Parts: sequence; C-alpha cells; structure tokens
Amino acid sequence: MHSATQKSLSVLFRATLCAVILCAGALSAHSQSQDPLPSWNVGSNKKAIIDFVTRTTSAEHDDFIPAKMRIAAFDNDGTLWSERPLYFQAIYIFDRIEELAPAHPEWQQTEPFASVLRGNLQAALSGGEKALLEMAMATHAGVTVSEFSESVSRWLETARHPESGKPYTAMVFQPMLELLDFLRANDFKVYIVSGGGIDFLRVFAEEVYGVPPEQVIGSSIKAKYEIRDGVPVIVKQPEIDFIDDKAGKPVGINRYIGRRPVLAVGNSDGDFEMLEWTAGGDGPRLAMLVHHDDDTREWAYDRESHIGRLGRGLDEGPQRGWKIISMKNDWSRIYP
Amino acid sequence: MHSATQKSLSVLFRATLCAVILCAGALSAHSQSQDPLPSWNVGSNKKAIIDFVTRTTSAEHDDFIPAKMRIAAFDNDGTLWSERPLYFQAIYIFDRIEELAPAHPEWQQTEPFASVLRGNLQAALSGGEKALLEMAMATHAGVTVSEFSESVSRWLETARHPESGKPYTAMVFQPMLELLDFLRANDFKVYIVSGGGIDFLRVFAEEVYGVPPEQVIGSSIKAKYEIRDGVPVIVKQPEIDFIDDKAGKPVGINRYIGRRPVLAVGNSDGDFEMLEWTAGGDGPRLAMLVHHDDDTREWAYDRESHIGRLGRGLDEGPQRGWKIISMKNDWSRIYP
Repeated sequence: MHSATQKSLSVLFRATLCAVILCAGALSAHSQSQDPLPSWNVGSNKKAIIDFVTRTTSAEHDDFIPAKMRIAAFDNDGTLWSERPLYFQAIYIFDRIEELAPAHPEWQQTEPFASVLRGNLQAALSGGEKALLEMAMATHAGVTVSEFSESVSRWLETARHPESGKPYTAMVFQPMLELLDFLRANDFKVYIVSGGGIDFLRVFAEEVYGVPPEQVIGSSIKAKYEIRDGVPVIVKQPEIDFIDDKAGKPVGINRYIGRRPVLAVGNSDGDFEMLEWTAGGDGPRLAMLVHHDDDTREWAYDRESHIGRLGRGLDEGPQRGWKIISMKNDWSRIYP
Repeated sequence: MHSATQKSLSVLFRATLCAVILCAGALSAHSQSQDPLPSWNVGSNKKAIIDFVTRTTSAEHDDFIPAKMRIAAFDNDGTLWSERPLYFQAIYIFDRIEELAPAHPEWQQTEPFASVLRGNLQAALSGGEKALLEMAMATHAGVTVSEFSESVSRWLETARHPESGKPYTAMVFQPMLELLDFLRANDFKVYIVSGGGIDFLRVFAEEVYGVPPEQVIGSSIKAKYEIRDGVPVIVKQPEIDFIDDKAGKPVGINRYIGRRPVLAVGNSDGDFEMLEWTAGGDGPRLAMLVHHDDDTREWAYDRESHIGRLGRGLDEGPQRGWKIISMKNDWSRIYP
C-alpha cells in the first residue's frame, strides 16, 4: 500500500476512534454530572428517591418493578402547587360567583353566596367543605364540560395570586416538576390524585405538569350526555358524583387505575389513606409527605391549619417508613 | 493512490452500498407484504380502516392527529368477544350464585335467585337488566376487589362455553385482536368502554386484549376503603356507582379519559351514543358497528334480539358515515 494512502487511512482511523472515545467519554461524564433533581438539596430524602428509582428500574435487582406496574400517585393542592390563602380552585369559584352574580339576584340574600359577594371569604367558608361544594355545584352545573374548560382556561390566564401577584400556574413546585420528569424518564406512569375537581385540573395538568387528562383523578359532580341544537354535549349536573379525598383516594385510584401505586406523595391528612394504601402493597414502596415548614419562601403550617392540615401523617408517617419532605431543608428552590 | 488500494476501497464501498440497498429493499418489500389485518377480507371496510390510520398518522396529511389525541374506544360484549347465549359475565354470576347458594338458603325462595338455582335462566332474566344487576350486587358485594379478581380468574380458567366448549377467553374475535394491535402500532391508545363490570373486565383485558386495567371503562358498583385485620382493602358495596351503557358511555369516556375518542367500535344500540359522541367531534373520525350476520361461524341477530339489539345503528349509521362491519363478509376468520 502506498505510504501516503496508508497514512491518510491511519489518520482517518485514529480520528474516528478519537471521536468515538471522546464522544463516549463526554456522554458518560454528562450522565454522571446530570443531577435529575437539581432543586433538591443533598440529603436522605433526595437519596431515598434516587435509590428507589434506581432499585426498581434495574432488571437485575430484587426490587425491580416491571414498567407497567410503575404507578406513581401525586396529590395536587399543597403537593404540586401552593394552597394558600385558599385552594386555588376555591378562588376560581369565588371569582365565578362574582361573574355570574348579575344573573342570580337571589345570591345577594343567600349564604354562602352573599358572603362571597360582600368579600367576606372567612364567613363564606365557615360552612366548611360542604359550603364549598355547594358553591362549586352552583357555578359549575348546567354548563357543558367544554364551556367549563374554557372558563377555567380564561381564568388561569388572567387571575393573579393575591399575595405573590403571579399566575396560579407559576406557583407550582419546581422540585416536584423535576421529580415528575425523573419518574417519567424511568417509565413510571404519573397520576394526579386530588381532592380538587377533576375537570378543573384537566384544563392545565398536561401543560403545567405533563400529566394528560386520562391520568388526572379528582372529585367530580355527575354529568349527562345530551343533544343540544343537534350537537352532542356533556353537561355538568348539580349532584355530587365522587369525593376524591381521605378514604376516597384509594377508592378513586382503584376506580381509575385498577392497580395499586408503588409511589405516592401528598402533604395533608387527606392523603393519609392514599399513602397507607400505596405503602401497604407487597414489594418496594415509597410514600412521602411534603411538610410546609418554610414561612420565608412559601408558608408554614401543619397541625392547626384548616387547609392542608397535617397531624396524623407527622405522628405516624415516620414509624411507617414514610418520608417527610421539609420544604425548608430539602428544597433549594420552591417555584420555577 | 495505489490502484490495489483504490480497488479494495472501491470494492468495500460497493459492498457497503449493496448491503444498504439490499437491506432497504428487503425492509420495503417486508412492509408492503405485511398485511396488518390478515383476517379482514379485502373490501371497503378494511380499506376505510387502513386509510384512516394512514391519513391520521402521516405528519404531512391534513387529517394528521397528534399521538396524544389518538384515542380509540371499543365496546366489549359482541364487539371484542361473543355474547351468546348470554353476556359471559351473566354466566359467571349464575355460576357464582350456585357456588354461594349453600350460604344463602333464602335464595331458594327468592327471585331471581330461585330461578337460577332451578336452572331456568330464561325466568331468571325476565326481570331484565335490573334483575341482572341485583344478582351482580348480591354476588359481588362484600368481597374485596382482589378476592373478586381471584374468583373471576378461577372461573375463566375452568368454565367452558355451553355450545362451543371453549374457554370464554378463546371466543374473542381474531380480526379485532389484529385491529387493536394495528392501532397500538400506530400510537393509538386503545380503551375498552363496556356496559359490563369494570372489575370483571380488568381481570383478563390485559392478557387477552393487551389493554391494561387503567384503559378499561365499565359499569361499577361502589367501593369502600377499609382496614381489615390491620390490612388495607377495597371492598365492593351493594350500591350501583355507574352504568356504562347507552348515554352513559360518553359520560364514562369523559369521566375516565377526559378527551373525545377519534375512533369507536361497537355492535349494538347500547353503543349508539358512544359512536355519536366520537363521530361528532371535529376532524377525521371513524365509527364502526359490528353486525352479527354469520349464523354459521358465530350467531346472526340484530333488531329482534334481547342481547346486543341493533336497530337504530343499522338505520341511521350508514347515513351518518358509520361503517357496518359484516362478520360474514368482512372477516375471513372469527376466533383465533
């Protein structure tokens, strides 16, 4: 072989080899340096999450879980986004009551509507969840599911949080967005299991959390199929269908998924049964509670709070092996 | 360049090129000869299905549908498997009544149970769907969801169809199995939307149809979360939760999926509203009804049948653009 040719081939070969090695090296360095949870501080909780995902997705590990069984359930209010001063959906309901008030003169004299219209939200909520549900039904029923979605969409675009001034969808927790992505990258199927309204959540869950409508579970009112002016529609009815809270959460999970999750995250005693049901299955399980203990960057509340009360979970969670996530210590960043 | 080197490089180049061309040719021949629906006879229905899938999955086509919107809904009884002489789940319920009868001496004197125990199924079913539901609740309620699943599993393994002598899960329609696979291979998400019981279907839908539990929608009775002997369980209750039939089907689809399907297949007037809801959306849609017109290989029935009655669909379907699938003419094979 001619030496020049030989040399040029050899150069080509070495260049290619170098490129391959460099490339592999870069990839390996990249995957080692790539922290899947950059907004989580180094600590036992971050380690527990990464260990759990590593063990359950390594085919040779005893804790391996086949992809189809990798179901992860996340509460929404207080777990994926903030819930102060009120559940954000309650604020939507109050805004909607004001919007619809001209067509409902009777509301001026009927509680809890009258209190909402006078701006006395404390009084409006004194009836507890029942009063909130009554208001939800009065404002949601009679409209079609797509009209309702459009109303929520418009509200999310224009409404701003009374304290932060941000759009509500900007008050989601960055560490949780990272956790959802990390789980999905490892073939976990992520569900939202919320006490909030399913049709409300479905409006933004896909865009904000990457969770498609069919993976959103929530409370619901009944619906009815109708032909309106020759067009088929689904109309929301003034009757409770399902309350996806407390002992309702495992029931909702069974109804919608038909499999038991292997990972669940919540933040209040309303999530206790969901975590208990998740942790009670065979094999590796991860159950976590977000503890709102950061009064500087978010809010601090637990046992004494009306919204997102967390008492039993703090008392019994650790001895059950559940992880308590401290927003203050575990998260380097709260919002995106 | 030395001519020998030149020649060897040229040989190498041509060999590689040939390999690439041969390989591409083989792949192309392979994909052309591979019929995705081998048990469907050549005809307008087979063509309509293949055209629909081709158009909606070609990024450059006006009818392109993004993968996440490719929702396909299939009825089960009479659409994916046979439903004669009775819905197979009704046969399970009757068998279960016999099994449980020793613990329920009162059934000997109470209709419809007494008729079942005397083997008079005609009389047992004279009360229509209400009687069937009553029997379903009496036999399903009080047990946990996992106990129920085990019972159905055992039954499916041992029970045989009274006429064919086959296991019930062998009486699924081969052309439909091919259609489900073809759709999934093209990134459609396939759901079962059945009037039958959701917990019953979930026992075998994954193994038999490749449809995971979270993609099964059906009728349900209420459920309750309980701690039994320290173990969390979900217990079926003697109260109807949801009837996934007729106008209930679009409601069930909205509840579970939250998106409108682009393709729906049924076989009876109980599927009319599901097809109407599916076909009523914007953009390309495909709605189909299986017509049981093959008395030799399966059964022939439509307008006059108590089970799987099909009248309105035959009258209005074609003018609405729905396809009527003839089991006799469109399918070269019925069972696997």
